[in-house]
Amino acid sequence: MIIGANWHCVYIQFYYFLRGQIGGETVQNLSITLESGGKTPMYEQLYRYFAAEIARGHIRPGEKLPSKRALQEGLGISRSTVETAYGLLAAEGYIEARPRSGYYCGDLVAPASPEPRSRPAPEREPERQPPRGPDFSTASVDVSQFPYATWAKLNKEVVYSSPELLRRGHRQGDLPLRRALARMLGETRGVRCAPEDIVVGAGMEYLTGLILQLLPEATVLGLEDPGYTAMADTALALGRQVRYIPLDEAGMREDELRKSDVNVCYVTPSHQFPMGVTMPASRRSRILRWASEEPDRYVIEDDYDSEFRYVGRPIPSLKSMDDRGRVIYVGTFSRSLAPSIRVAYAVLPGPLLAKYRALSAHRLSTVSRYEQAVLALLMDTGVYGRYLRRLTGLYARRRARLLAALGDIPGIEVSGDGGGMHFLIMSRERTEPELLESALEQGLDLAGLSRYCHRYEPEGGCLVLGYGGVEEAQLSDACERLRRALK
Amino acid sequence: MIIGANWHCVYIQFYYFLRGQIGGETVQNLSITLESGGKTPMYEQLYRYFAAEIARGHIRPGEKLPSKRALQEGLGISRSTVETAYGLLAAEGYIEARPRSGYYCGDLVAPASPEPRSRPAPEREPERQPPRGPDFSTASVDVSQFPYATWAKLNKEVVYSSPELLRRGHRQGDLPLRRALARMLGETRGVRCAPEDIVVGAGMEYLTGLILQLLPEATVLGLEDPGYTAMADTALALGRQVRYIPLDEAGMREDELRKSDVNVCYVTPSHQFPMGVTMPASRRSRILRWASEEPDRYVIEDDYDSEFRYVGRPIPSLKSMDDRGRVIYVGTFSRSLAPSIRVAYAVLPGPLLAKYRALSAHRLSTVSRYEQAVLALLMDTGVYGRYLRRLTGLYARRRARLLAALGDIPGIEVSGDGGGMHFLIMSRERTEPELLESALEQGLDLAGLSRYCHRYEPEGGCLVLGYGGVEEAQLSDACERLRRALK
Repeated sequence: MIIGANWHCVYIQFYYFLRGQIGGETVQNLSITLESGGKTPMYEQLYRYFAAEIARGHIRPGEKLPSKRALQEGLGISRSTVETAYGLLAAEGYIEARPRSGYYCGDLVAPASPEPRSRPAPEREPERQPPRGPDFSTASVDVSQFPYATWAKLNKEVVYSSPELLRRGHRQGDLPLRRALARMLGETRGVRCAPEDIVVGAGMEYLTGLILQLLPEATVLGLEDPGYTAMADTALALGRQVRYIPLDEAGMREDELRKSDVNVCYVTPSHQFPMGVTMPASRRSRILRWASEEPDRYVIEDDYDSEFRYVGRPIPSLKSMDDRGRVIYVGTFSRSLAPSIRVAYAVLPGPLLAKYRALSAHRLSTVSRYEQAVLALLMDTGVYGRYLRRLTGLYARRRARLLAALGDIPGIEVSGDGGGMHFLIMSRERTEPELLESALEQGLDLAGLSRYCHRYEPEGGCLVLGYGGVEEAQLSDACERLRRALK
Repeated sequence: MIIGANWHCVYIQFYYFLRGQIGGETVQNLSITLESGGKTPMYEQLYRYFAAEIARGHIRPGEKLPSKRALQEGLGISRSTVETAYGLLAAEGYIEARPRSGYYCGDLVAPASPEPRSRPAPEREPERQPPRGPDFSTASVDVSQFPYATWAKLNKEVVYSSPELLRRGHRQGDLPLRRALARMLGETRGVRCAPEDIVVGAGMEYLTGLILQLLPEATVLGLEDPGYTAMADTALALGRQVRYIPLDEAGMREDELRKSDVNVCYVTPSHQFPMGVTMPASRRSRILRWASEEPDRYVIEDDYDSEFRYVGRPIPSLKSMDDRGRVIYVGTFSRSLAPSIRVAYAVLPGPLLAKYRALSAHRLSTVSRYEQAVLALLMDTGVYGRYLRRLTGLYARRRARLLAALGDIPGIEVSGDGGGMHFLIMSRERTEPELLESALEQGLDLAGLSRYCHRYEPEGGCLVLGYGGVEEAQLSDACERLRRALK
């Protein structure tokens, strides 16, 4: 009887009910289903059946199994099939052969409780649903601008021409990508580094986790408050001590940093997340000075959205001012290219690089070598740079449209809008829950500032508005909904 | 003067030497190089130059800067260029404008020591060199068997047809891949799990690191001795306590496990690494029994090379016997497909899944969604299964050739060869260094067992021979060299 078929073979199943004679007495029904012509040989199916019954405690230690002949005749299978199955079961301790008596269930350790507890049903997560209204999440990126045709073509070329990329690559990432990164970081962020200083990894969360593992165990990490909560999650999951350092209008307060027992601070100087502040050079030099005073002090500079700058000039990175090797620079393609491009990069100071090499002696890079090769080509051919300039123009226009839509609403102020892909909206008259509620009424699922705060309490209600993911076609509607929500 | 060109634009540079009049006195030479027609506007180049000089302490707080006119005339640039640059420098605290006097270097905090220490030169790592002789590393895989044409075609199709995969995917990995994995694990390893139970990650090191973060902070991890050293590295880097549990001919000793304070043990039951032992069902049930006795006990089952089995039948996985949700099952494509396919998978018990979801609320999968889609298609179309069967046949023949070559050498014994991609070679008469030395004389860079041992001391000399990466064309030569080395 054909009961199922897939692309490659047809299964024919026999059903047979065997009335088990165990210990001279009928104790249970054994119901054995074997599949003929399937992928699994008959003897293995028989073996698996008994192994599972024994493991689950349905057949108990000392109980007698059906004789070989009973199985052979009952199932209509060959003697060698039964012998092979029983031989395997005996070899692995499931059953024991007793001379001139037959086969008995072996002395496996029975489960601790007689009835196995049923496994709790996993929480069924809804697979991702499309957002209802315009997407103002700070994590979203406008992938419609992604240089798709070029990327697909490069991908095809690399995949078809480079079977050698299946082999083990360099653990820090392949040299062409690290070379392209070193050149780009030098040109656009003033970071003087060699390809040897760079480590490529599967996303920022992986890479920051790796960096925390390279720091001394007694490390106390100073985070911005308000700040990027995922960094706190990563640090706490790794058992690191965390302190929250307040900000002022120049970014992380250096005086508060000095008052704390922090030895490594994590900052987003180019466009603080979520406040949007750009750290001025004077504060940068103070933070660097702090770091240079003790041998185990470091600054983690997350330059996550420095590609996009609309007002003033990009201040050179902290790393470019770092003569003493105290800055760990990290950046990512997930925000500049697309969220699913899981490639981040770190520039490690000498001692951490040495520790990384010792730790990762047997490790491979976490990024596909094909993806690495495509990214290197995107940079080397200038496609990436042109794409970033186009995207900066697009985001600048989008930002201007949003600011214009908000500009004449009384009681509403906007800040942190000089760069990146988000800004803050502040209201002195309405609370955050009130703002979120009226946004929801307009179909906008916005983020309140409070979700990024540890001790910081904003005056009035604050929203964090990401505009990277708002589609162009939705922009007019998005502006209108926002106006209605905030009026 | 044209001094450089790349694909997209031509740079013309002017060199100009300005004799800086600072504080009424010539204190140093300022050498400013500006680039015309490049990507960076002139004012930004000027800004960057002074910002860097000040940050490095070459211009010190209170020193007077060249007048705007001096710069304008000296460099032959427009007044607005100089004004913009000075404006930026002032806005960011690098310089201060003093009325009717000019611009002075701001009160930036100077570096802690007058001369910046030079950064230690990074250890220059040689980029990967091709091995001299046949590759007997246990980490190598025969990528010549990889279904390259199909993979490349699927890759191309997915890349060209699915721009939506650039967006954020499911943090556990996309559903099609998890569905294909759940089906495969059910069919081939007896693992009953839903796609919701599976987490996909960028390689085994990432995934085991993640799992260790989900376990209670007080976790003491029991590792096999001898065992997989990378697991110890990962655990120690995460600050976990580690104990080494000795093995016997059935794998990890359950009595020693009970004597220890371990609450989570890591085992490779299908083909112990490196000893090659297959854990019999009786030991499996004992280990599971141990795990079921306390609420915080777990077993991490690394099923890393269970795809390949030559002798006897694959014993069902520990996870398939796990009625109480105590087994964390992990597997990888890096060994079955290719080292550069950085995709591993874990089946998490309910409580760990819940913790994972809390920890990873804001995280994305570490694997490219395109790579995920291609893998899912490879499995769904049966290509992956057929490839594994072909590879198993190939590895079986290769193993047989090697065993035949070693079979009649006096004093040499082989063990752990029932599955996987490696076996042990033991000599009672020669020490490990002696064996390694004679292998080297034959151009073979082999691994001694001792590198995987913590306290275990093998009797005689032992080598761990991986044959996954030995190319077919090299096999006769490889057998010959091995014979000469061991004779």
